[in-house]
Amino acid sequence: MKLKFTKMHGAGNDFIVVDAINQQVDLSVDQWRRLADRRFGIGADQILVVERPTDAGVDFRYRIFNNDGGEVEQCGNGSRAFVRFVVDKGLTQAHSIRVQTMSGIINPRLEDDGSVTVDMGAPRLVPADVPFDETGLAGMVQGNDTLWPLPVGDETVFVSVVSMGNPHAVQVVDDVDAAPVEETGPLIERHVRFPKRVNAGYLQVMDRHHIRLRVFERGAGETLACGTGACAAVVAGIRRGLLDSPVRVSAHGGELSIAWAGPGQPVYLSGPAVSVFEGEVEI
Amino acid sequence: MKLKFTKMHGAGNDFIVVDAINQQVDLSVDQWRRLADRRFGIGADQILVVERPTDAGVDFRYRIFNNDGGEVEQCGNGSRAFVRFVVDKGLTQAHSIRVQTMSGIINPRLEDDGSVTVDMGAPRLVPADVPFDETGLAGMVQGNDTLWPLPVGDETVFVSVVSMGNPHAVQVVDDVDAAPVEETGPLIERHVRFPKRVNAGYLQVMDRHHIRLRVFERGAGETLACGTGACAAVVAGIRRGLLDSPVRVSAHGGELSIAWAGPGQPVYLSGPAVSVFEGEVEI
Repeated sequence: MKLKFTKMHGAGNDFIVVDAINQQVDLSVDQWRRLADRRFGIGADQILVVERPTDAGVDFRYRIFNNDGGEVEQCGNGSRAFVRFVVDKGLTQAHSIRVQTMSGIINPRLEDDGSVTVDMGAPRLVPADVPFDETGLAGMVQGNDTLWPLPVGDETVFVSVVSMGNPHAVQVVDDVDAAPVEETGPLIERHVRFPKRVNAGYLQVMDRHHIRLRVFERGAGETLACGTGACAAVVAGIRRGLLDSPVRVSAHGGELSIAWAGPGQPVYLSGPAVSVFEGEVEI
Repeated sequence: MKLKFTKMHGAGNDFIVVDAINQQVDLSVDQWRRLADRRFGIGADQILVVERPTDAGVDFRYRIFNNDGGEVEQCGNGSRAFVRFVVDKGLTQAHSIRVQTMSGIINPRLEDDGSVTVDMGAPRLVPADVPFDETGLAGMVQGNDTLWPLPVGDETVFVSVVSMGNPHAVQVVDDVDAAPVEETGPLIERHVRFPKRVNAGYLQVMDRHHIRLRVFERGAGETLACGTGACAAVVAGIRRGLLDSPVRVSAHGGELSIAWAGPGQPVYLSGPAVSVFEGEVEI
């Protein structure tokens, strides 16, 4: 069976995007993982599968598979790639699109300058909703946020916990370049207090409207720019009293912009999405 | 400009293969590098460009670009991918093909089982031909080979020097899995005694017809299986008196088979070559 796909990236976070409306797509976890392999397959951080919606009142459904083959909830960079894809392929005439994802409905919009703004929904800040198990832990208050002590190796790091549809643990560091992302990222990702694992963010405050960020993504390792990670980091920074909306986020892969009006309000993420090539692979 | 390509791999060493006979291809070093980037481009260890020959009596010319954008001489896995490509694309009816490369003419052959055997030419064993500058060094004789002491970090490693059209420094290790490839590979690659840099091979003898091998490739870092590296390792092992032809070479990416009848004779490399997908990229 031949499968058509588009290879895209959003700030260096890269995706295989598959139209499952005009072709039949039913792959196993092993097949997804193989497709995401950078030498034996196509290679990508994640695979986005565009489907017809199953709910009323939405335009599309899209599913996301990590490069370990597992299905996950959400990805900010991925939803930008998704929008460019459905517009470029003529799957919709609209530029503001309602999309059903595993973590709820999102409403991204293609801007005139080619960037895409995504309403990422309101962050969930209650630990149990992240989910984070705070049983017996004494949190430390900073601004309007609570920092949770997390034993990691020989040290304790203090993290904000935020769900953007997927769980995030955000810590503030002095210098992202020197942050031990490779060492502590996998330990935080699989920390016992995060029953669904977690994305580990390392945030450096440059000024009140600019941060630098690295994210160790659940199931994917460190990526060049994680969209939901940027949202979670800015939400945590604003709640801690360190940042004011809007905030520019510099990641290794490029620049994103995040706006958030406060608790209960949606987070808006803007950034680029680029098609790199079209391909056809034998499954 | 749109460029058609095929993504292939040979034992996990992966290639972008471009037909420059039926389409015009004239890219800068920056453009090659961008295409080889695994997130912002297509992603590969190397790019193979298939051209009409400029010499008489040969079927094709092919050029090889590393993922740093630089043009290099030879690659055993690449020449297997090359053969499958020209046969699969109908660019030739022959299964035994004469190909002009930067390091001379090679004569690969597609076998009935789908594997490809490549006459890799005779190894060059004189240090100046590798090129290796042995000025003032006292070599150590083992079998018919000379081992050269190479200061690397705080230690001295003893290497055989072999050219297979490209330079190789081969050392024997007790356990390839434990070999410090990431640490010493870059130091050997750029060692001052190799004026054109060098590929660093780490060889573990399993029995007289079987080795395990890791190679830190010049300009590419550690790859899953380096074809010329496998040839150079087997030549060095036979000369040292540790191996007898033919020799099975187990690399992370798969299995190769190497045959060599001795000095002055060509090295034959057999192994798989697989097309993964077809693509078209905007340059």
